[in-house]
Amino acid sequence: MILKGIAAAPGYAIGPVFVMKDNQVKVERKTLSAPEAKAEVVRFSEIVNQAIEQVKEIQEQAREKMGDEQAEIFESHILVLHDDEFVGRTKEVILEKNINAEAALAEVTEELVAFFEGMDNEYMNERAADFRDLNKRLHGLLTGAKQASLSDFEEPVVLITDDLTPSDSAQLDRDRVAGFATNIGGRTSHSAIMARSMEIPAVVGLKDVTEQLHDGDIVILDGTTGDLIVHPSDEQIAAYRVKKENFAKRKAEFHKYMNAASTTVDGHTVELVANIGNPGDAHNAHKNGAEGIGLFRTEFLYMGRPNFPTEEEQFEAYKEVAETFGKDHPIVIRTLDIGGDKELDYLELPKEMNPFLGYRAIRLCLDETDMFKTQLRAILRASAFGNVKIMYPMIATIVELRAANAILAEVKAELDTAGIAYNKNLEVGIMIEIPAAVLVSDQLAKEADFFSIGTNDLVQYTMAADRMNEKVSHLTQPMNPSVLRLIRMVIENAHREGKWVGMCGEMAGNLVAIPLLLGLGLDEFSMSASSVLPARVLMSKISLADAKEIAAKALDMQTADEIQQFVQDSFPVIEELL
Amino acid sequence: MILKGIAAAPGYAIGPVFVMKDNQVKVERKTLSAPEAKAEVVRFSEIVNQAIEQVKEIQEQAREKMGDEQAEIFESHILVLHDDEFVGRTKEVILEKNINAEAALAEVTEELVAFFEGMDNEYMNERAADFRDLNKRLHGLLTGAKQASLSDFEEPVVLITDDLTPSDSAQLDRDRVAGFATNIGGRTSHSAIMARSMEIPAVVGLKDVTEQLHDGDIVILDGTTGDLIVHPSDEQIAAYRVKKENFAKRKAEFHKYMNAASTTVDGHTVELVANIGNPGDAHNAHKNGAEGIGLFRTEFLYMGRPNFPTEEEQFEAYKEVAETFGKDHPIVIRTLDIGGDKELDYLELPKEMNPFLGYRAIRLCLDETDMFKTQLRAILRASAFGNVKIMYPMIATIVELRAANAILAEVKAELDTAGIAYNKNLEVGIMIEIPAAVLVSDQLAKEADFFSIGTNDLVQYTMAADRMNEKVSHLTQPMNPSVLRLIRMVIENAHREGKWVGMCGEMAGNLVAIPLLLGLGLDEFSMSASSVLPARVLMSKISLADAKEIAAKALDMQTADEIQQFVQDSFPVIEELL
Repeated sequence: MILKGIAAAPGYAIGPVFVMKDNQVKVERKTLSAPEAKAEVVRFSEIVNQAIEQVKEIQEQAREKMGDEQAEIFESHILVLHDDEFVGRTKEVILEKNINAEAALAEVTEELVAFFEGMDNEYMNERAADFRDLNKRLHGLLTGAKQASLSDFEEPVVLITDDLTPSDSAQLDRDRVAGFATNIGGRTSHSAIMARSMEIPAVVGLKDVTEQLHDGDIVILDGTTGDLIVHPSDEQIAAYRVKKENFAKRKAEFHKYMNAASTTVDGHTVELVANIGNPGDAHNAHKNGAEGIGLFRTEFLYMGRPNFPTEEEQFEAYKEVAETFGKDHPIVIRTLDIGGDKELDYLELPKEMNPFLGYRAIRLCLDETDMFKTQLRAILRASAFGNVKIMYPMIATIVELRAANAILAEVKAELDTAGIAYNKNLEVGIMIEIPAAVLVSDQLAKEADFFSIGTNDLVQYTMAADRMNEKVSHLTQPMNPSVLRLIRMVIENAHREGKWVGMCGEMAGNLVAIPLLLGLGLDEFSMSASSVLPARVLMSKISLADAKEIAAKALDMQTADEIQQFVQDSFPVIEELL
Repeated sequence: MILKGIAAAPGYAIGPVFVMKDNQVKVERKTLSAPEAKAEVVRFSEIVNQAIEQVKEIQEQAREKMGDEQAEIFESHILVLHDDEFVGRTKEVILEKNINAEAALAEVTEELVAFFEGMDNEYMNERAADFRDLNKRLHGLLTGAKQASLSDFEEPVVLITDDLTPSDSAQLDRDRVAGFATNIGGRTSHSAIMARSMEIPAVVGLKDVTEQLHDGDIVILDGTTGDLIVHPSDEQIAAYRVKKENFAKRKAEFHKYMNAASTTVDGHTVELVANIGNPGDAHNAHKNGAEGIGLFRTEFLYMGRPNFPTEEEQFEAYKEVAETFGKDHPIVIRTLDIGGDKELDYLELPKEMNPFLGYRAIRLCLDETDMFKTQLRAILRASAFGNVKIMYPMIATIVELRAANAILAEVKAELDTAGIAYNKNLEVGIMIEIPAAVLVSDQLAKEADFFSIGTNDLVQYTMAADRMNEKVSHLTQPMNPSVLRLIRMVIENAHREGKWVGMCGEMAGNLVAIPLLLGLGLDEFSMSASSVLPARVLMSKISLADAKEIAAKALDMQTADEIQQFVQDSFPVIEELL
């Protein structure tokens, strides 16, 4: 059986699946006599000790494989196992109600989970997950029927789940998860973006894959085509082993291009840079051959914490990224793009019917001026330590650009007064991700230093199709002639004013799109770190002249499929690199 | 005090407000002795008889003022007052529980309301409203403290409410409601559109006006500026009485243009047609001078009922509209645009995070082919009775247009086989309301017979701003240069292929926008019926040559405000007509 999903991150995984569901532990409730209840408390204490040993072992493994930070998660599990509110309370319930440990444990877990989940605080909410994990572990030990858990697998698994949130993804262990497949999501969903940045092969949008597969089912996951082959034949496994090896070999070859310039066969050089979400990603981008950062998403600094990051915290993060790349390499820092599907615990935002068409990014920053000014100060200060540029997201009108620049001018004046250093020639650009901005890009180009096209949103608005919504995901067509024509318009308008144009949407790292974008005149391509080397290899094997000719023809074609096929036929080298 | 809202429908209302909230009736519960309970039943019976008399009186008034249809609502109230499940049950409860009539009535009402509201059927849900109304009336009579209700006002009131749904609005009585003001909504919300079509002055988006005002407060509502003046001075009232009279006079003057062609001073003729939601609206449009129907929204045929409308029901509705206007006048019927914020009880649709970017209109019809074919058959059959045209909504790609046309071809073949008459030369056009469609309108114009620009959605997607969301309503800018440039692109591309272009968004009826649209070459303007005559008067007082020159200049300006001001300054006649 082959399940067809959306190819989200390239590569191949072969192995057993692990289905991660909110699986309910089935609890049998038994009434005990008083002496039996006392004995049950003793049994429970022993099981708790066993669990502590088990967690310590896992913690040791985690420390070796993943470092101290990951190991700390288990520290908190051990603490809870010594904790009165959990273990102590369970013992009390056994004695008070004369019931078995499993039933008492379930009651106490339920109470604690409800308590912590009810709190409007992400840190506290996470504690609920700890109790749930421990309940599962203890229940397994009590009944002897051990529940499968990610850490129980000897060999790496293919993780099957409904969806992965950004924080889920961050907890994935590359050594244990050979690939993953999800029910929901599209090529530009968070889980897909994360998979590509972690270089884990992934297929998303499989609808009900969590229902169709069971723990231990053997699958082949093809992150390049989006196929998930269930119970493959020996022949299929053998064939995919070869593919997998070739993929690894090709990756090794790519590394030869690590320090090369990104130049076409006819000598045209572009800039290949990376999209990152935190300073740690910058190191990874650097290791993957990126020539700088084309998009530093700063939301992650604001998320998963109880209050606004201070100017100092932000400054340190921005400075770290700037210093990772040194003075010569551009670091484009995007100001806060919060709202939409990204919320903050400490900033109350209205509940919206259509958050993607709502109050977010620059719209919000222009109202929350204190927050915005703090970020701008931090970025300006970091600009003394590297080639930092500022970029405003979600600009729709020239009025917004002017309003943002007026606030920036205030902040600069404050720094001047205080004698604090910053780069006075720092470039200030805007994201072009709203159709309106494209249509007036001739005017915007006179007042912005550069553009960066955000194709994820631009495609979504241009096609009026939510990229997270499977029912309309067939309309997420970056290669649709309408989108390509908008891109051409942006580049022509910018170049007319002598400004450069980048792209930081997913499209910039797509090997089929790259020749078109090159042909349309794109100057900077910002992508997942893992896409940089393949893109550079492709660049080194095609010519600007060919790309221009192909792009001109493509823009008169009528469908995305037709254009995609035309580009692939025109540049056979793409096939080799995919 | 002046409250500032969004001007939703022109005109002036002066008078007391009536605040329509879900106001809870406060019920005192008293325990009675058995003989007292028996006496209470007698008291309740008398009150019910009084209520019947009261309702009959109101019904008589309704019949005189509003006709039989409105009067029928009260017929059902009288029936309920004779009904065992309501009146009989209340008497039982008085005796069973030995409580006062008010408390028993409240209990029975609550049960019945919950029962009928729980049913997944709009007709049954409406019965709940009947019980609630009657409870209020009876409670008022029982306690002597009569609650204000819309029908109690001698003079027309300014209705103050949170929002009006389409069905709320349809029940408004123009004789009793001089104007209305709502907390939520924007210029293109349903309540605003309804207000304009019913010619009731309205101001929307006032945030918490239901909290700020109390029944009987005197206000001046200015539906032209969006002002709501609370407790106006005598001078203000006098000044607005004059404005109101002038407004009425101008309306009378407009009627002289009823049967004129829509021609500019330099002899260029365009078509001024109306947007309608049901066959009844067509008569109103005809009475208001419309030259046809530019948008017949067919969703209303599908809503507020327990199942799909049959082919026959649809055919009758389409035919009625076609016959209202006769063979010479165009009737553009838009195929079903369901989904988004419009749901059907009998068609399960996925819950979406961003319904405006979701599974709706043609996207859904291309999947629900049985439903779609039934509608197409009904429209085709109606085309034998008038100048009917078909229009597909939400076309984003040429692939969708071709898919819809393939289904239409099937239906035509079926009708041919069955020997059923239809207009074989019927025109098939598309809405241009998604930016993607604009960008490939050169290609679409080769395969569609006409375009109609839907500015409400087009502006929303172009600006990436939900038009229902107050936090971003400042970005709903039909006069933004980006939107105007898209409109120019559509018209130029269509004319190059010899196709005509209409507009059926709110913008087409906006007097400031009309000269720009005329200058850009728009052929057909479809608007609220009440906007047709002012638009025709304006048309007759300006020249195409001037409009072209102004439009060309406007498109190089940078902000919507600047453009708006420029047009108003260029054509002083607009000011006179506003």
